[in-house]
Amino acid sequence: MKFVTFIKQNGQERAGVLLENDYVVDLHEASSGELPEKLLDFIEKNEEYMKKAEDYFFVSGEQKGIYQLNAIQLRAPLPLPRSFRDFYAFEQHVKTARGMRGLEMIPEWYDIPVFYFSNHLAIKGPGEIIPKPKDSHWLDYELEIACIIGKEGRDIRAEEADEFIFGYTILNDWSARDLQQKEMKVGLGPAKGKDFSTSIGPWIVTKEDLEPLRAGKGYDISMKARVNGVLLSEGNMKDIYYSFAEMIERASRGVTLYPGEILGSGTVGTGCILELGEDVHRWLEPGDVVELEVDHLGVLNNIIE
Amino acid sequence: MKFVTFIKQNGQERAGVLLENDYVVDLHEASSGELPEKLLDFIEKNEEYMKKAEDYFFVSGEQKGIYQLNAIQLRAPLPLPRSFRDFYAFEQHVKTARGMRGLEMIPEWYDIPVFYFSNHLAIKGPGEIIPKPKDSHWLDYELEIACIIGKEGRDIRAEEADEFIFGYTILNDWSARDLQQKEMKVGLGPAKGKDFSTSIGPWIVTKEDLEPLRAGKGYDISMKARVNGVLLSEGNMKDIYYSFAEMIERASRGVTLYPGEILGSGTVGTGCILELGEDVHRWLEPGDVVELEVDHLGVLNNIIE
Repeated sequence: MKFVTFIKQNGQERAGVLLENDYVVDLHEASSGELPEKLLDFIEKNEEYMKKAEDYFFVSGEQKGIYQLNAIQLRAPLPLPRSFRDFYAFEQHVKTARGMRGLEMIPEWYDIPVFYFSNHLAIKGPGEIIPKPKDSHWLDYELEIACIIGKEGRDIRAEEADEFIFGYTILNDWSARDLQQKEMKVGLGPAKGKDFSTSIGPWIVTKEDLEPLRAGKGYDISMKARVNGVLLSEGNMKDIYYSFAEMIERASRGVTLYPGEILGSGTVGTGCILELGEDVHRWLEPGDVVELEVDHLGVLNNIIE
Repeated sequence: MKFVTFIKQNGQERAGVLLENDYVVDLHEASSGELPEKLLDFIEKNEEYMKKAEDYFFVSGEQKGIYQLNAIQLRAPLPLPRSFRDFYAFEQHVKTARGMRGLEMIPEWYDIPVFYFSNHLAIKGPGEIIPKPKDSHWLDYELEIACIIGKEGRDIRAEEADEFIFGYTILNDWSARDLQQKEMKVGLGPAKGKDFSTSIGPWIVTKEDLEPLRAGKGYDISMKARVNGVLLSEGNMKDIYYSFAEMIERASRGVTLYPGEILGSGTVGTGCILELGEDVHRWLEPGDVVELEVDHLGVLNNIIE
């Protein structure tokens, strides 16, 4: 199933399910109020609600609360996630990005999946405008996949971690490389290099839907980024070095994870301008349209302002 | 005024105001439901609610909902803040902590107040147990002050930033130095070095109460840390290099700040074992009691398990 958050013509924001890519069902309306209005609330009790949702759509054939996609506006599927951790799990990205700066690979990278916390209060959705930070001249995108935690847990082992995943979505970890470079010299972060916007969407695909595509430590799904229609980045999630299960093991060590927390994969190889080099493409400018496309996860597009 | 969150003998968790250090008033009960149950909700509309709260206690002489401190249990004043950024604003700490590792001061530190995001879902309160991370042998405390945002804002200038502060509290940024050292070699974070616990409390003092103590870029309030009763750290908040107003300017550049977000000052000089050296004190062990005391902000104590 594909879950969205959307705004109806009457201004109501609701959690929904995508039907055949053309319609969304307002879960709250279709269930006469039995299912919650917000996707975060749905995810918090998804084991209970998922069964109810399936009953409504597949058993009762309920027809209430169905809207055409072109009559509503999609928001970020989780506009207010409980937190956002971003990992660094694709080897090629780390190698190449360091190589561009004349740096060797870090041996510790192979020992532990490393992450940082970023600003979960600056989440954007499909079609939303990304304001270019005023004091940055090196604005970049980052092509990533994110998983959404669906079940509370602590000290989760990688072997059992899949049951703590609700689903997946595309993630664009917008980066101001000049701000990032400067602040990271002080030895913390990134923070201002990344805190202004992170896009997710267009929907969250439940993990069951991706199961048949398992390959390597991820799924066999191609990942692409286009800027103003020109293909710049191309990778595949199956090349990930650390699985999301291993990231969850790391994040939950001594720490409770809650439903609605988001974990980003880190950038896929070739998945940002920093890695491609300015010979291939200049930094982003107002008016640029950035489209991230991942098989089965849809297209996440944003415009820079 | 001093704001707390506390648990009553009937198990209810409530926002309260401390009276003469011996009693707390349950804001919701005393106002017959006009004031909210949670301090986060109070802070979100504090301009409106603060006036009402003052009316109840100082005008009407209302006597409902008053509890003796020894009959209730204090929690973290904000058990679920909206986010947690930690800065690095005391020069002596940065200089000494780097010096201990044979590193020179970073010139960029003097240009910008730098921070990182940490885990706002692992907040502890006074008296709470801090579990020592299983895979860490170098557990440390950090003596800090935090400010709590009280008003939404974006691109806030330092000169106007004080009006966005609700109040202040003591903060202990528990740190696993071995985990931190390893993960930061990869160039991100800290994350696992800090994500397991952050203590705040025992209460939030409104900024108006500290106003007469202004000195330097902070307040003239002494800051002390004791481990098992032995004084290890002693500093003063007036020695801070970056004011909270400057930190807010930095954090809000291109980013919206919301009521209930927490900004930590970073460690005051001498305020952690890393800085003192293992000759002065070994790393923390289960059973150790760590007490942070700050003039006017109270005592925040925790025990390691």
